[in-house]
Amino acid sequence: MVNHYSSKLVEEAVNELSKLPGIGKRTAMRLALHLLKQDVTYSEQLGNSIITMRTNIQFCKRCSNISDQEICEICNNPRRDEKLICIVEDIRDVMAIENTSQFKGLYHVLGGLISPMDGISPSDLTISKLIERVHNEDIEEIILALSATVEGDTTSFYIYKQLKDTAIKISTIARGVAIGDEIEYADEITLGRSIIGRLPYDKGL
Amino acid sequence: MVNHYSSKLVEEAVNELSKLPGIGKRTAMRLALHLLKQDVTYSEQLGNSIITMRTNIQFCKRCSNISDQEICEICNNPRRDEKLICIVEDIRDVMAIENTSQFKGLYHVLGGLISPMDGISPSDLTISKLIERVHNEDIEEIILALSATVEGDTTSFYIYKQLKDTAIKISTIARGVAIGDEIEYADEITLGRSIIGRLPYDKGL
Repeated sequence: MVNHYSSKLVEEAVNELSKLPGIGKRTAMRLALHLLKQDVTYSEQLGNSIITMRTNIQFCKRCSNISDQEICEICNNPRRDEKLICIVEDIRDVMAIENTSQFKGLYHVLGGLISPMDGISPSDLTISKLIERVHNEDIEEIILALSATVEGDTTSFYIYKQLKDTAIKISTIARGVAIGDEIEYADEITLGRSIIGRLPYDKGL
Repeated sequence: MVNHYSSKLVEEAVNELSKLPGIGKRTAMRLALHLLKQDVTYSEQLGNSIITMRTNIQFCKRCSNISDQEICEICNNPRRDEKLICIVEDIRDVMAIENTSQFKGLYHVLGGLISPMDGISPSDLTISKLIERVHNEDIEEIILALSATVEGDTTSFYIYKQLKDTAIKISTIARGVAIGDEIEYADEITLGRSIIGRLPYDKGL
């Protein structure tokens, strides 16, 4: 497809926008036109917020969560339980778990999952940093909160192997039929896991 | 939904990104995370291309097409036929028609269509500028290339009324069954229009 942009400026913006995941040339063009119809200030705010974010972002030295400081807000919060660490894939999982208000410990963000297919090995993740934390901090329990996929299971097992000879308790989040889902429609693996992981009635509510 | 961003920088970028049409908070977060995983230079290029485009863009003084100069490349091209003007809704239509390589005249970009529902009246478009062009330039034919919607038809009719008493020929693009489409599945209005607009066999190829 030959494209006749009547403006090099628009062509460049469309090219940059279409490098974003899930945004093709057509969508990028629609976004560029939208920006042209808006006030100049919006494009300035958008452009500057992207540049400022990328330039000034830091990764927490302790848990690798994104942060505006050297140590993130969660690690810095004296009311959180330092002895309990939840292992997650990325910062979206931190946000999802924080939204539940059910977890009062700290996190450790791996930055991905082990995936030989995608060329991601343990050394690409923050696993060695986790082992270091386990040795230097007074940790009692680690909760593995990784996706129930081949990659998630591989990563969980790898971490489990690294830590099983320490005194730390290693747990994993419960798998089971989601709240609101009908038993009939649950897949058999999930349903099987929810039976194996059954709880005393008064604790399962 | 309470959102726990561990970084104000990310929160701001997500807020700005989610103001774009078709991009919700979740997609914006995915885009922000993608940017964080890329090199700093990409975010700088993206941000700057957006700001530069919006700040420096001009609208051609003649046809209202977007342009990097006062007069756009198409209006400035001496090999194009100045006596033939194609009326389009926006610059995406200019690009679409340019891609066909079938049109050698100039354009007039309306900047929208008349739509009382959306509060868009003729005075919000560049129609008066078109009338001016008709009076000041040596135009022989105007081709209406607007969408086959209520808004498109209303706008076409409005322009037709304004110009019908001049010596200018007013035509509209052909409507009909698309190349590659089966007659059986064409909607009846399109099929009806393609019968009314039938051509001598040797011209219809």
